[in-house]
Amino acid sequence: MTDRILDFLRTRRPDGPCLVVDLDVVRQNYLGFAHAMPDTRIFYAVKANPAPEILSLLAELGSNFDCASVVEIDQALTAGATPDRISFGNTIKKERDIARAFALGVDLFAVDCVEEVEKVARVAPGARVFCRILCDGEGAEWPLSRKFGCEPSMAIDVLTHARDLNLTPYGISFHVGSQQRDTEAWDRALSVAAGLFHSLAERGVELKMVNLGGGFAAKYLKDIPSAEAYGRAIMGAVRRHFGNRIPETIIEPGRGMVGGAGVIKAEVVLISKKSDAVDETRWVYLDIGKFGGLAETMDEAIRYPIRTRHDGAQATPCVIAGPTCDSADVLYEQTPYPLPISLEIGDEILIEGTGAYTTTYSSMGFNGFPPLQSYVI
Amino acid sequence: MTDRILDFLRTRRPDGPCLVVDLDVVRQNYLGFAHAMPDTRIFYAVKANPAPEILSLLAELGSNFDCASVVEIDQALTAGATPDRISFGNTIKKERDIARAFALGVDLFAVDCVEEVEKVARVAPGARVFCRILCDGEGAEWPLSRKFGCEPSMAIDVLTHARDLNLTPYGISFHVGSQQRDTEAWDRALSVAAGLFHSLAERGVELKMVNLGGGFAAKYLKDIPSAEAYGRAIMGAVRRHFGNRIPETIIEPGRGMVGGAGVIKAEVVLISKKSDAVDETRWVYLDIGKFGGLAETMDEAIRYPIRTRHDGAQATPCVIAGPTCDSADVLYEQTPYPLPISLEIGDEILIEGTGAYTTTYSSMGFNGFPPLQSYVI
Repeated sequence: MTDRILDFLRTRRPDGPCLVVDLDVVRQNYLGFAHAMPDTRIFYAVKANPAPEILSLLAELGSNFDCASVVEIDQALTAGATPDRISFGNTIKKERDIARAFALGVDLFAVDCVEEVEKVARVAPGARVFCRILCDGEGAEWPLSRKFGCEPSMAIDVLTHARDLNLTPYGISFHVGSQQRDTEAWDRALSVAAGLFHSLAERGVELKMVNLGGGFAAKYLKDIPSAEAYGRAIMGAVRRHFGNRIPETIIEPGRGMVGGAGVIKAEVVLISKKSDAVDETRWVYLDIGKFGGLAETMDEAIRYPIRTRHDGAQATPCVIAGPTCDSADVLYEQTPYPLPISLEIGDEILIEGTGAYTTTYSSMGFNGFPPLQSYVI
Repeated sequence: MTDRILDFLRTRRPDGPCLVVDLDVVRQNYLGFAHAMPDTRIFYAVKANPAPEILSLLAELGSNFDCASVVEIDQALTAGATPDRISFGNTIKKERDIARAFALGVDLFAVDCVEEVEKVARVAPGARVFCRILCDGEGAEWPLSRKFGCEPSMAIDVLTHARDLNLTPYGISFHVGSQQRDTEAWDRALSVAAGLFHSLAERGVELKMVNLGGGFAAKYLKDIPSAEAYGRAIMGAVRRHFGNRIPETIIEPGRGMVGGAGVIKAEVVLISKKSDAVDETRWVYLDIGKFGGLAETMDEAIRYPIRTRHDGAQATPCVIAGPTCDSADVLYEQTPYPLPISLEIGDEILIEGTGAYTTTYSSMGFNGFPPLQSYVI
């Protein structure tokens, strides 16, 4: 929460749920990463929040951009990034999209299988590719799956195949899991990556780069490590595993860059109980839910701090739900959320830490509710 | 799948993933319900698919509309419905939205607690309200929760309170769960509803209507009951529990009206494995996923039929995932989906039964991917 956001809400009084992002916090976060990891290039994960104001600020500050699609590449270019500062970081790309990106000047592509290498080789001759490997994501709060990356042993085939097709096998990437609060989580993956550098060198493939991925936490309810703490632990692990042959490193913060910069203003639409029983849990219904921007409450994975004008008053655990006619649009129920007893229908509430993964997850208009409004200040 | 949809796709060859809805099927489904339950008014659940062409057709056929928001009410009015054919069926409404709806002529509102009754009484004097009661949803395929409705005993307080505030206590509603393939599922709820009619009559509150909700299934992989079978079972239960005092009845089909009328055309972006092991499962990545319209694959609840040009060929179980850089964007993994071994990258596939709950669930642009295109023919 910042004074600028509070001022904006007080002055502008926007109707309906909305996200307000404070660019000062984004700037501060960028400089924090840059200071903590001075030898590492920062590739902002555009998918976290592609608001043009955010991309322009980061482009100006010198950031690079991790893009998931040609649309995101266009957005980064429009914001002022040059193509050499863009990585097409999605391992799942249509061949015609690889061709478009290459035509725009992008020459750094993520892959995790020989099939994707072949696409890149056909339409982006000579381009640099890095291979994503699977990582268990232990300790992360947003679920990882096996969707991205291959077993490390397969990465050897993938990158030698790239070399055989005249691509530039450039490096290894991994992701330790989003909202990763354990700074040591990078250690094991870096040990595997160092092993792959070695095995590939024996096959004449000299890799240059380790993409350390994202996973940097935003502040929700629990404490999170500082950028310095991440930097110290990660660069310590790099030195431990790579000795005096330190590779280029890049990081891809998304949530850690913008999550804490945004606050969603919402309204309490209804507070009710399901029966007359005295100990019955209150249900608090907001004008924003899973389909209006809070998709990351899926499985109650991300637990946002919620501020009300009654903070400090006595609270009891509530079920919190969204406004749509969809039974699945419930935010917190398995672990009910404490809210003040004095909370009333019509009260405005503030949901903190919502700068990342909200606006773009928002549905087109489910139940007729418009997509989440966003103001970047 | 219909010839009209196949013709459209063959002729127009739209780029990117898209939904095509055949209005002939919607018409057929409407007439099916109308024929099977001639004494029941049909309120189409607009949230299932609010495409203007669908709403206009249904308005013309005489359908009523179950709306979740003022935007949906506007859409129904624009399509030609008069306000007396509209129900504001969301139990969670802002007071100012109730006022807007009432100003537009709508006078039928869902409630499930005294707090909501008080809002309606303040801004929609004299309006008709029906109280939604909880129902266990056993046998339904899309998860129900306790989000909507109150314990039946509380409905007595809710509706007598409505009477005391000079509203018109009009009826009882319930929902047996979406994609409910058990036609007997309505029986228990109707028995409870009949009991409430009786208890309220003793308190001088004469209810008129039972809202039987939705739950009517669309055809996915498993067989579903016909409209006739639903009608027979439900009206049988109504007669069983209400004897010779049959109330007005209404139904709110959404999925059952439009689900089977739509087909999504998508493309295979990548097929790969995670390791070199011979028995390793194939991963098939499409250009549409959980955030591009297939949200109902959440927890693998809805299993869509998928057609490929290789149908009939030998198939093996695959994990199916979407195109975004989000680990949660996996459609079927716990129960892998059999797809032909000969399926290739670049192949077009058809996902059937996708006329409901797809376009509007689609995200604004997650990962830069545009919202799901829709064609109504």
